Amino acid sequence: MQPKIGIVMGSKSDLPIMENCLQVLKDFDVPYEAKILSAHRATDAVLDYAATAEERGLEVIIAGAGMAAHLPGVIAAKTVLPVLGIPLQAAALDGLDALLAIVQMPGGIPVGTLGIGKAGAKNAALLAIAILANKDAKLRTALHEFRAQQTKKVLEGQDV
Amino acid sequence: MQPKIGIVMGSKSDLPIMENCLQVLKDFDVPYEAKILSAHRATDAVLDYAATAEERGLEVIIAGAGMAAHLPGVIAAKTVLPVLGIPLQAAALDGLDALLAIVQMPGGIPVGTLGIGKAGAKNAALLAIAILANKDAKLRTALHEFRAQQTKKVLEGQDV
Amino acid sequence: MQPKIGIVMGSKSDLPIMENCLQVLKDFDVPYEAKILSAHRATDAVLDYAATAEERGLEVIIAGAGMAAHLPGVIAAKTVLPVLGIPLQAAALDGLDALLAIVQMPGGIPVGTLGIGKAGAKNAALLAIAILANKDAKLRTALHEFRAQQTKKVLEGQDV
Amino acid sequence: MQPKIGIVMGSKSDLPIMENCLQVLKDFDVPYEAKILSAHRATDAVLDYAATAEERGLEVIIAGAGMAAHLPGVIAAKTVLPVLGIPLQAAALDGLDALLAIVQMPGGIPVGTLGIGKAGAKNAALLAIAILANKDAKLRTALHEFRAQQTKKVLEGQDV
Amino acid sequence: MQPKIGIVMGSKSDLPIMENCLQVLKDFDVPYEAKILSAHRATDAVLDYAATAEERGLEVIIAGAGMAAHLPGVIAAKTVLPVLGIPLQAAALDGLDALLAIVQMPGGIPVGTLGIGKAGAKNAALLAIAILANKDAKLRTALHEFRAQQTKKVLEGQDV
Amino acid sequence: MQPKIGIVMGSKSDLPIMENCLQVLKDFDVPYEAKILSAHRATDAVLDYAATAEERGLEVIIAGAGMAAHLPGVIAAKTVLPVLGIPLQAAALDGLDALLAIVQMPGGIPVGTLGIGKAGAKNAALLAIAILANKDAKLRTALHEFRAQQTKKVLEGQDV
Amino acid sequence: MQPKIGIVMGSKSDLPIMENCLQVLKDFDVPYEAKILSAHRATDAVLDYAATAEERGLEVIIAGAGMAAHLPGVIAAKTVLPVLGIPLQAAALDGLDALLAIVQMPGGIPVGTLGIGKAGAKNAALLAIAILANKDAKLRTALHEFRAQQTKKVLEGQDV
Amino acid sequence: MQPKIGIVMGSKSDLPIMENCLQVLKDFDVPYEAKILSAHRATDAVLDYAATAEERGLEVIIAGAGMAAHLPGVIAAKTVLPVLGIPLQAAALDGLDALLAIVQMPGGIPVGTLGIGKAGAKNAALLAIAILANKDAKLRTALHEFRAQQTKKVLEGQDV
Repeated sequence: MQPKIGIVMGSKSDLPIMENCLQVLKDFDVPYEAKILSAHRATDAVLDYAATAEERGLEVIIAGAGMAAHLPGVIAAKTVLPVLGIPLQAAALDGLDALLAIVQMPGGIPVGTLGIGKAGAKNAALLAIAILANKDAKLRTALHEFRAQQTKKVLEGQDV
Repeated sequence: MQPKIGIVMGSKSDLPIMENCLQVLKDFDVPYEAKILSAHRATDAVLDYAATAEERGLEVIIAGAGMAAHLPGVIAAKTVLPVLGIPLQAAALDGLDALLAIVQMPGGIPVGTLGIGKAGAKNAALLAIAILANKDAKLRTALHEFRAQQTKKVLEGQDV
Repeated sequence: MQPKIGIVMGSKSDLPIMENCLQVLKDFDVPYEAKILSAHRATDAVLDYAATAEERGLEVIIAGAGMAAHLPGVIAAKTVLPVLGIPLQAAALDGLDALLAIVQMPGGIPVGTLGIGKAGAKNAALLAIAILANKDAKLRTALHEFRAQQTKKVLEGQDV
Repeated sequence: MQPKIGIVMGSKSDLPIMENCLQVLKDFDVPYEAKILSAHRATDAVLDYAATAEERGLEVIIAGAGMAAHLPGVIAAKTVLPVLGIPLQAAALDGLDALLAIVQMPGGIPVGTLGIGKAGAKNAALLAIAILANKDAKLRTALHEFRAQQTKKVLEGQDV
Repeated sequence: MQPKIGIVMGSKSDLPIMENCLQVLKDFDVPYEAKILSAHRATDAVLDYAATAEERGLEVIIAGAGMAAHLPGVIAAKTVLPVLGIPLQAAALDGLDALLAIVQMPGGIPVGTLGIGKAGAKNAALLAIAILANKDAKLRTALHEFRAQQTKKVLEGQDV
Repeated sequence: MQPKIGIVMGSKSDLPIMENCLQVLKDFDVPYEAKILSAHRATDAVLDYAATAEERGLEVIIAGAGMAAHLPGVIAAKTVLPVLGIPLQAAALDGLDALLAIVQMPGGIPVGTLGIGKAGAKNAALLAIAILANKDAKLRTALHEFRAQQTKKVLEGQDV
Repeated sequence: MQPKIGIVMGSKSDLPIMENCLQVLKDFDVPYEAKILSAHRATDAVLDYAATAEERGLEVIIAGAGMAAHLPGVIAAKTVLPVLGIPLQAAALDGLDALLAIVQMPGGIPVGTLGIGKAGAKNAALLAIAILANKDAKLRTALHEFRAQQTKKVLEGQDV
Repeated sequence: MQPKIGIVMGSKSDLPIMENCLQVLKDFDVPYEAKILSAHRATDAVLDYAATAEERGLEVIIAGAGMAAHLPGVIAAKTVLPVLGIPLQAAALDGLDALLAIVQMPGGIPVGTLGIGKAGAKNAALLAIAILANKDAKLRTALHEFRAQQTKKVLEGQDV
């Protein structure tokens, strides 16, 4: 099935956290593709990925990266699709470096930034689905159902 | 014309920064509505605004707030529409408080966060337009045109 | 016995830290109720809890939450009872995000914020008891006794 | 009239910010006393003030201080009354030093901390009133009225 | 004269700070070129600039940028020449965002980062000259002379 | 032997770090006394300790504390002896809270602050000895010898 | 008169803040010398100053510097006299850089660090005087008198 | 073979991280020398090392240090060779102290700063090689080859 959402991460070591993103997309049955593509170490591939994303039918791009996390911003520079960024924790500074390097984009090139790490990875998927749901009534219904289930679990004292 | 984008700000004093958001929407001729609605001081109005946003035809909500900025998160809790947050600078801490209070949402309720202040306000509008453009070819063309103009201005040494 | 103090926490995983709060209330024999209620994932329940707290006879509400911790602020928005907030550490940023998201409330809706984590949880209980003690001479005496014991233990080199 | 709330500030230069606290108490017609008493430069007076507060009939103490702000904590160490702290901005670090020096109290001696500066000063008064309102039905009614007025002003687009 | 050092800045508004860099190069009579080229708003021009820098005879590239400053890192990704980065202060966060976004590069793509703002701009030029001096004895002599003059001025109580 | 240096720590759990301070004093054969005395939980004892320190023959007081570390500042308020402070790491914020709560003293009451944790504990002892050495030629000689040994060890590649 | 205290500052522009240090020494009639000597730009002079301080009869050295403030630490490395450091605010980061660069000294070479800016400059002088007072009964009496005056002024509501 | 690059680290405990630097130099077959030399505990040796580096044929100096990391700056003060600094994590503050103490050098004495820890250590070596490559065509070719391999590995999903 034609992927609607493209997920890019800066390094293979980001996969355990980014799995929280992929799992939500699987749960909602949204077709996606996931790639490991470093903004700095595979720049041309990143640029090409971003520049062709629109014509390949992607509707949202999610990028997760740590440290001086340029991946979401570089992708956003080469596409007008909505780009979502996930700051990841690396060896030092607890993800604050990645957060600032993603969220503080200059005027003109937006990146919608989610929280640091696991919660951000999960939420990037949910926000991407919310974007798709603007033209997909079934997804919107699924989001309502997800929210209702989530509330139910919290009220039952389950961790969500 | 039916607004597609709802803009909410926490206080009248946020307006000068939020104007950078409104101006972009005007430039792209996107119908929007703007309201001053504090998450803490007008909670019911905020909740009602968020809960009815979908049925009133909004497709994206943008919320700007400072300090312990709960406005975007509270709205996101009451709608499945994409919610974008703009952290604003207040008297102390240079907007870092608002940034963390908006971006660090728990898993399950996403807020796509933009940069602090003016650049974030402008980019929230551009990201909202990118979201609308997923089902509006004219807007997508306008985004491409905006990007081309922006690049041209930078290369000519104009501030953008 | 009719609870005087309501304790709310954002997630079941907050319980081990929040136990430090509950234990103090037990030690002082203060009737309380404790609930798991997420500001974002169970918003209506939180709002209802806060809005009915006064008529149900609560005199203080204590709320502990991590990340973009909106729980104390949202509760404070819906009640005029004294609300105390406990910032909790989550995966990143060491609780600084929760601290700022709780303490930096806008003028008009106060949250009395305690320290991050275990010490804050214990102190929230003690502050709540101090508030109750304004009209309960026995509790005030108990607080004086607690302080005297605490001083004694410190002077004997015990950890408290 | 017998003061119910004692306000202490570390230096005369704190007065313009602390006025936001005093004004709220005047508006609610709550009897208070205000003193300038440095924790470090007038320690004995502070200790005496705190130690006699209960017998002099005070029910809440509010302390505002900047830098390594020890004033609220030192007062809290000498009274079992509820103590509220207001971190104030000084020449450097934007109030973060005062915030951490007030809020991070060790377990056993609580200080309910409000936000940095003006908003915190206003909110300290409101929280103190909420505490008094636990045994003063007229004050509770006044708080409800204050909240209703505040909401009304926000919805009318006035700054509050 | 063939430029040896290429200076790139993200926006025309960066020029007053970057002038501190240009001035040093003028003082040392080092041929340079300066361009305004945004990593996000003129990405292709930046990439092309970096990719052709080596063949055009540049020996060092200096890039100054603010906020989520990707310019030095993106240039470094496309050239093996030494790249030096200058973090600039923007509206919020005092340059900390730019510092972290420049210095925290992932392993494999180095950026030599200087201090925030004016001192960093001056030092980037001096470090670039030190690099050139490895094969230019006259420049090394000039650096020694500069240092001697600087020391003399400090000892005479002049600001340098 | 009459102690010259008084060491105070806020809690028994601070002992493992503070041992680095005590060990240096033992190595230099400087008579000292060590006490566990919380500024908040044993205030009177702290005040008494500080107020009588001069007459008891102490010449320097060293105080180590974590979180909202008031211990050094409270002691400094009650004595004109030189007071040195050691910020200790606690559960959250990595000692930054203690550092700011100790070092940012208001004008008039100085605390000489050392680094966070183990290195600071060691250095507090060394600085206290340097102070004593102003009137004790043997101690000064011992300091010179310590420095010479330390340099030797570093040059031999030993950890010091 | 033979100076007892040496004051060193990194740049002429530090003088207005450092005057707060000099003024206290004048008020206490303590002989001092003040020099402008950059750790980086006049290293040999700094090293020579520190290495000869003891034999020239100095008993305390105070060093004030901004940014990556190495001056106090470099001096401390070359003398066993007590060295006190004053972090100064520069263009960015509000003095936090200077604070960390001064206070976080490695074990073995202590610097007693005072607060950022004006209050720290004043307190460095007071701490130096306290150190001298260990062998100068007149100075100790003067310190007691200073404290008494200071307390009196605070209680009279004067700013100190 | 005559070393071209001098590596200095502040303590033996820095070696495991600094090995990431040495390994790259070995991989590129660049002659280097590595020393443990503390800026504070072996100052004269550091100064001598830096002052003689040029005449001994070194072309770049790399210095890694933690806490109030003065090593790179002190070296830079005594040589006009390019100096690169690597901030290392120590017990507290996650390397932020070392980063600011290295990067925020005053105008006139540059240090090219790399990222905190392992990635910075690796990148310091790569930047030093890039500097050497300005007059060594074989090294430049090797850098191009390294980059190509690195890109290949990333695209194959290997961690680099």
